[in-house]
Amino acid sequence: MSMLETCKRARAASVKLAQLSADVKNAALCRMANALEANVDRILAANKEDAEAAKARGMKLAMLDRLALDKKKVENMARCIREVSALPDPVGEIVKTWTRPNGLIIGIMRVPLGVIGVIYESRPDVTSDSSAICIKSGNAVILRGGSDAINSNLAIGSVLRDALAGTGVPEDAIQVITSTDRSVAEEFMGMRGYIDVLVPRGGADLIHTVLEKAKVPVIETGLGNCHIYVEEDADLEKAVPIIVNAKCQRPGTCNAVEKLLVHRNIAEAFLPTAVAALRKGGVEIRGDEATVKIIPDAKHATEQDWYTEYSDFIIAIKVVQNLDEAIAHINKYGTKHSDSILTKDFDKAMKFIRQVDSAAVYWNASTRFTDGNQFGLGAEIGISTQKLHARGPMSVQHLTSTKYFIFGSGQIRK
Amino acid sequence: MSMLETCKRARAASVKLAQLSADVKNAALCRMANALEANVDRILAANKEDAEAAKARGMKLAMLDRLALDKKKVENMARCIREVSALPDPVGEIVKTWTRPNGLIIGIMRVPLGVIGVIYESRPDVTSDSSAICIKSGNAVILRGGSDAINSNLAIGSVLRDALAGTGVPEDAIQVITSTDRSVAEEFMGMRGYIDVLVPRGGADLIHTVLEKAKVPVIETGLGNCHIYVEEDADLEKAVPIIVNAKCQRPGTCNAVEKLLVHRNIAEAFLPTAVAALRKGGVEIRGDEATVKIIPDAKHATEQDWYTEYSDFIIAIKVVQNLDEAIAHINKYGTKHSDSILTKDFDKAMKFIRQVDSAAVYWNASTRFTDGNQFGLGAEIGISTQKLHARGPMSVQHLTSTKYFIFGSGQIRK
Repeated sequence: MSMLETCKRARAASVKLAQLSADVKNAALCRMANALEANVDRILAANKEDAEAAKARGMKLAMLDRLALDKKKVENMARCIREVSALPDPVGEIVKTWTRPNGLIIGIMRVPLGVIGVIYESRPDVTSDSSAICIKSGNAVILRGGSDAINSNLAIGSVLRDALAGTGVPEDAIQVITSTDRSVAEEFMGMRGYIDVLVPRGGADLIHTVLEKAKVPVIETGLGNCHIYVEEDADLEKAVPIIVNAKCQRPGTCNAVEKLLVHRNIAEAFLPTAVAALRKGGVEIRGDEATVKIIPDAKHATEQDWYTEYSDFIIAIKVVQNLDEAIAHINKYGTKHSDSILTKDFDKAMKFIRQVDSAAVYWNASTRFTDGNQFGLGAEIGISTQKLHARGPMSVQHLTSTKYFIFGSGQIRK
Repeated sequence: MSMLETCKRARAASVKLAQLSADVKNAALCRMANALEANVDRILAANKEDAEAAKARGMKLAMLDRLALDKKKVENMARCIREVSALPDPVGEIVKTWTRPNGLIIGIMRVPLGVIGVIYESRPDVTSDSSAICIKSGNAVILRGGSDAINSNLAIGSVLRDALAGTGVPEDAIQVITSTDRSVAEEFMGMRGYIDVLVPRGGADLIHTVLEKAKVPVIETGLGNCHIYVEEDADLEKAVPIIVNAKCQRPGTCNAVEKLLVHRNIAEAFLPTAVAALRKGGVEIRGDEATVKIIPDAKHATEQDWYTEYSDFIIAIKVVQNLDEAIAHINKYGTKHSDSILTKDFDKAMKFIRQVDSAAVYWNASTRFTDGNQFGLGAEIGISTQKLHARGPMSVQHLTSTKYFIFGSGQIRK
């Protein structure tokens, strides 16, 4: 099918989908979840093809882990769809109403965006998660996953589409692009008027390519060079487990901490304990000059280190003069994702929260909580690090727009 | 000054501006309003240069009207700034907070977008309106007006910047691009990382050029091919003044009606009265075949007519079979701006409101109310006809983003 035909079908499906009740959409989502479980063998067979081909090409183990499915992972995909079906339906919600002096009643109603494009790498579970979130929010979705996972994605997409038959949700609400050609991806990113928003999910290279090439609105997601700043008055006993958790619990995620900033007045007392705990977790330590003086066997951090999202068991440590230097450092080198201050002082915490220009700013907690589920929003389609439209974890309500409705009784403008 | 330098200054100003209290910003806005009034002679002198040059080039009267200032218009600009200063400050507003089972308190705080770019045509009042709205919402603004109004814009910009001295609001919060070169405009639209959002204000050509050339996020504004649909059960006595108001009160505005759709069961009874009233207002009538049968001296509307925003004393009329055809017609030919249904029936009205995919959908009122002031939002920087980020009249709160803040007491993720 041509890209134009795919897009036209998505648009037509989105118009129908926008008018469906929560009941119809939720019943369809449950059918989708059931179908994944019923077709687990078919999905795993397709995934095995992908995984073996990737292994033969020498794909790294961490990447293979993301690509490879098993029965439990497919059950998790089904569970995620059921969780999405249990979320409140954002579509049709009346956000607010007010009355004007001339008697007009004005209201704001939540409506779907229309057609969502998703470009991702080798995680086949993105295919089902994104489909569920888009249908729940009344949007059609066009999925373009990485070539590594093409068989898995096509199998999952086909199972989900088949499950929609007879539910009232059009099958074309979910479409997986079959071609893995780069030129097709570029054509996809250029379908202005057909794709209402494009969400890239993956590493820095993917996101930069999409930002560079897309001619449709994009929501920038997921790059996380996250910081924890330890003030001189921080509770140092709580600080160590927070830092270790933020670095070690899942270092490959975008909300893992990559940089530790420490107030100079406590650096000598605190760093040896913190570093010992991090090293116990298998973390490589890099540091600025002041850090290396305290931790002599730490590697010297380069200027490039301060910009880098390691996504690995590495942390870079910098000793700062004060809160202002910490804030300035984060705003200069960070990726506007998640940053945390450890302090007992409310004023310092609020200054940090107001001045650090990031999607999620923490006081006395691990950065690892930046996630739709952890925030209580339900499943997420990505974590926006831009300011326009949506910022932070994006769930179903972030895939909606609003319209004004106006009830009158013959009003004319004077 | 180079574009890069302009943008860097705007960015630096935006960082300071984001932290200012409402009091500081409001005091600065009052100084700006006073300064416009105090410098009215200087502004009118600059405007006279522009107007005379435009007249010599043969500019149309309607365009000249928009370009030319007088004392009253400058006073209106000052009044608008004072109105903006009286609006509630959106920055720092805590939109919502909630507590998670693990004790984390999560909140959403409103923050400025950063740097707003405005590209506009020959209305010098856009220079002061946009400056006021941006400063109120904590954003720096870079203004690129049309070459026709360059002297006026530079004079107004200079007066406003001077007024900021000593107020705490950095002067670089307002910058008017001095060059009127097209290549400079294109450079401006390409300053990714420096311009957080670009708002084009003007006609279709300007908006299409910006959408085509911009490499920064754009909010599409203002094209209005608006419809009124008269159902068979409409109160026809109220219908006539609504239609005449929507067409004739200010036909050059984007919320003026351009198309009239009429249910076939009332076309014969209603159209002669409606057309007589419109013609009395000086309106040229075009119509589909059924309309021309009823109004024999109406001009035949072409396919192109249904797409056209006349911005003039012209209306095209179509007789439709039913509500569904009316909705389908509007969604096909409209510009997603403002559309109105006239009916007594709640179910029909709600169907129209839900299914017409426009920023503002009316029931029994003139489309002319789509405006920040008329909606009670205060001054507007434009009317968004896109779905991402903001839709409909955009006032100060639409020039903000949000951030999540998280208060913890040592929480780590399990």
